[in-house]
Amino acid sequence: VTLLRVLDVAGVLVFGLSGALLAVERRLDVFGMLVLSLAAALGGGVLRDVLLDAHPPAALADPAYLAAGACAAVVVGAGARVVVRLAPAVRLFDAAGLGLFVATGTAKALDAGLGAPGAVVIGCLTGIGGGVLRDVLAGDVPVVLRRELYAVPAAVGAALVVAADGLGVDGSAAAVTAASAVFTLRMVALWRDWHAPVLRLHGS
Amino acid sequence: VTLLRVLDVAGVLVFGLSGALLAVERRLDVFGMLVLSLAAALGGGVLRDVLLDAHPPAALADPAYLAAGACAAVVVGAGARVVVRLAPAVRLFDAAGLGLFVATGTAKALDAGLGAPGAVVIGCLTGIGGGVLRDVLAGDVPVVLRRELYAVPAAVGAALVVAADGLGVDGSAAAVTAASAVFTLRMVALWRDWHAPVLRLHGS
Amino acid sequence: VTLLRVLDVAGVLVFGLSGALLAVERRLDVFGMLVLSLAAALGGGVLRDVLLDAHPPAALADPAYLAAGACAAVVVGAGARVVVRLAPAVRLFDAAGLGLFVATGTAKALDAGLGAPGAVVIGCLTGIGGGVLRDVLAGDVPVVLRRELYAVPAAVGAALVVAADGLGVDGSAAAVTAASAVFTLRMVALWRDWHAPVLRLHGS
Repeated sequence: VTLLRVLDVAGVLVFGLSGALLAVERRLDVFGMLVLSLAAALGGGVLRDVLLDAHPPAALADPAYLAAGACAAVVVGAGARVVVRLAPAVRLFDAAGLGLFVATGTAKALDAGLGAPGAVVIGCLTGIGGGVLRDVLAGDVPVVLRRELYAVPAAVGAALVVAADGLGVDGSAAAVTAASAVFTLRMVALWRDWHAPVLRLHGS
Repeated sequence: VTLLRVLDVAGVLVFGLSGALLAVERRLDVFGMLVLSLAAALGGGVLRDVLLDAHPPAALADPAYLAAGACAAVVVGAGARVVVRLAPAVRLFDAAGLGLFVATGTAKALDAGLGAPGAVVIGCLTGIGGGVLRDVLAGDVPVVLRRELYAVPAAVGAALVVAADGLGVDGSAAAVTAASAVFTLRMVALWRDWHAPVLRLHGS
Repeated sequence: VTLLRVLDVAGVLVFGLSGALLAVERRLDVFGMLVLSLAAALGGGVLRDVLLDAHPPAALADPAYLAAGACAAVVVGAGARVVVRLAPAVRLFDAAGLGLFVATGTAKALDAGLGAPGAVVIGCLTGIGGGVLRDVLAGDVPVVLRRELYAVPAAVGAALVVAADGLGVDGSAAAVTAASAVFTLRMVALWRDWHAPVLRLHGS
């Protein structure tokens, strides 16, 4: 439990870093930095809880999440240049956070009684919702829709949790396996520079 | 019931096509295509269910909706050029879907105990919410706010359902009438190229 | 109670004016004007109620709110040039509305059992959520994230309500004090042209 908790809060913190860095890049003010941090850090979880009718949303009820999201803004405010230099480490944590968010989001959706397709959607939304909200608020088309191979690992992880649940596998083992698979796929995609294909309407 | 069900799922599919086509136009990757399909197809219904506290949202609980939304992405992926050539047919189904979404959304809001003004708002949001989400995710100002005469038919349809409910008319008859009115108004607006007026702040 | 009610509805109306004026500026059609009015006027309250599981959202259940939001569109439609000339008065009411929304949003979150950090977040979201939704729909990066000192007064007001609650101060007195503090801070920020600082990533 302790390890999961640490990873969970670390995931929130690292998602928050992505928001704060984007705010600096877009020349938003310090409040905009805090909002993008919190949006990136907590958006996916809030969306999950609202859709699953889990009230109050964990992101608002558990001070550790809010603190981790706000902490990200402070860290970037204090040393944005250092964070940029640490980009590889940030990506590592980000991939870990994605895996964890997808695994716990999917499991929570199954617990709430959703079927397999709905649970996969909720799991993916938990993982990518914060980043989508961050990008929309910053005026960008969400990066996950454009080029990063970010969503495919999420979908694979969510499908693994659903499959394990169908096979009666123990929930914790399934979550750890799925989160690891997401993490590995995401890191390989970054390392090999994999992108999802883009269809063209005109020409071949 | 069977006809309504077919039209309902067909409406979701056609709304999804609009999302997938926009994604191709904006050069999003295949995952972005799937997300815009699902957003356009299911966004209005999810918004309605979250606002009415109807959990779980029908779009997540009923696999037919998710399948229809995903199917739209596959259809466009397999033959975007064909879909573009079929644009007139797509608009026909889109107008039918709009009518159906508005009629069922308004009726669901009345059932949930909302008054007439709130039910009209929910009905319109059900009809146009998916398209608004689609456009925001793609980085556009929602087309329904800019020029298409799309919302006026929706508002008329929602008002008809509310009026029929106040007069004690049978719900199914009211829904069919309202959906038909939306469909007709929308098709006439397309045919006659009607637009809502734009106010100007400066000059006459 | 009567005064609070009047101020509350006046706040909704004035928030709505900001939406309608932005729609005119962006050359949206009359329906877009109505949507931006309602989004700016009611978005913060709907977000608050959805996050707190307060169903149905007050903005949809109470016709006075919908009427005030729609009224804003009509007022701007009838005399946008007059409203622009009255900008100072609009800012005054807007600051009053902000104070009121933040105070009541925070109090409602505490009533719903949220802790202090969550209640502050809900209070701020109630105050700024409508403006953020308005700007996103119009295709802008939310002005509150960019330069206006708008969110700091909101955060101070929410913190005051939470502190007063912790000290056992009477709720109405706390709300009035907090709303007044927000109003005063916001007006001083406008008068002195205060802005939140922007961090820079490169250079000094």
